[in-house]
Formats: sequence, C-alpha cells, structure tokens
Amino acid sequence: MIKLSVMYPKTDNLKFDIDYYRESHIPMMWGLIGGALKGLSIDRAVTGPDLPAPYAVVANLLFESVETMQAALAEHGAALTSDIPNYTNVQPVIQVSETSW
Amino acid sequence: MIKLSVMYPKTDNLKFDIDYYRESHIPMMWGLIGGALKGLSIDRAVTGPDLPAPYAVVANLLFESVETMQAALAEHGAALTSDIPNYTNVQPVIQVSETSW
Repeated sequence: MIKLSVMYPKTDNLKFDIDYYRESHIPMMWGLIGGALKGLSIDRAVTGPDLPAPYAVVANLLFESVETMQAALAEHGAALTSDIPNYTNVQPVIQVSETSW
Repeated sequence: MIKLSVMYPKTDNLKFDIDYYRESHIPMMWGLIGGALKGLSIDRAVTGPDLPAPYAVVANLLFESVETMQAALAEHGAALTSDIPNYTNVQPVIQVSETSW
C-alpha cells in the first residue's frame, strides 16, 4: 500500500484554520479523489512538555499503487493545492512511502 | 489514540541497515514496550521521479494515551535510543500526534 503524507510544518507564525480544513478541504479532497483512496487518517500534533511535534497536522492518504496515486493527483492535484492558502500560510512537506514490508 | 512517529531523514550520506532494523531493533522494541503498543506500522520511502520523500523510514507506534507512551519511554527509551547507532548514522525526528478528531 502506498501512503502519501501531507505534513504541515509547525512554524512560529503558523496559521491553520482547522475548521475550514475539516469542513471544506477534506470533503473537497474526498469528493475529487476519494474513489482512489484506500484509507485516510489525520494526525494533529499533541503539545506539551517533552512532546516534540515538528508538524502541526499530517494527512495520510492510502492508495493501492504509485500509479493510482499519480493518476489521481494528475487529474486533481492542482485543485487541491490551490485550496491550501484558504486554510494555512505554510506549504506542506510531502512524503511518499510504501507502508508494509 | 496517540501516534509516536520516529522519522529518519534521508540525508545525502545516509546509512541505514534495514536488515538490522527489521531483525534486531524492531523485535527489541517490541519486546521492551510491545505491551503498551496498540499498533505499529513502518513506512519506507518510495523513490522515483516526482516522488518526494524527506524521510527514508518512518516508524509509527500507537499508544492508548500520552501517559502510557511516556511511561513506556521513561522505562525503555534509553535502551531503544542507544541502539540507533547500530543501524543508522542519522538521528530520528520525533512527532507525537493525536490520530483521530
């Protein structure tokens, strides 16, 4: 299984509208590429003493293969990317992994 | 659920002995703190054109709560950390997240 992680760095002046992200961006993403998704999880940083978290939010999208991921992003990636400034002032770090071995 | 992500940066001169990691480090980790784990997944970077991956390997450890995670690490974290140089020349980046919302 292929995992596409979209990781939003926790910068000093980070703005992240979690309500917009939850109520608009994720539903839009699901509407556009949900048919290609095998799973989705969203991680939010836990803050506190001795709890490191370089990323404020991490979205993990599961795909059957690199090919299905790339096909979904080729068709809808631009629309998804153009929505980012509507909820945050940072650019996400992207990681593509194979999740089992 | 709490996710502890242990992320190994893909540096230019990275050394990572995946066999040792798989056959010695993960079993040792499981033996020490497996009783506190609710799940474990290991991600390995996919490499290729247009496939970004700042981390070579990411281990995701699931715990019931921050308290159970911290108790496990207080007891066994030093032993786990001291094993790192046996398989890699990088220090992992640590992320603590809440995985559902």
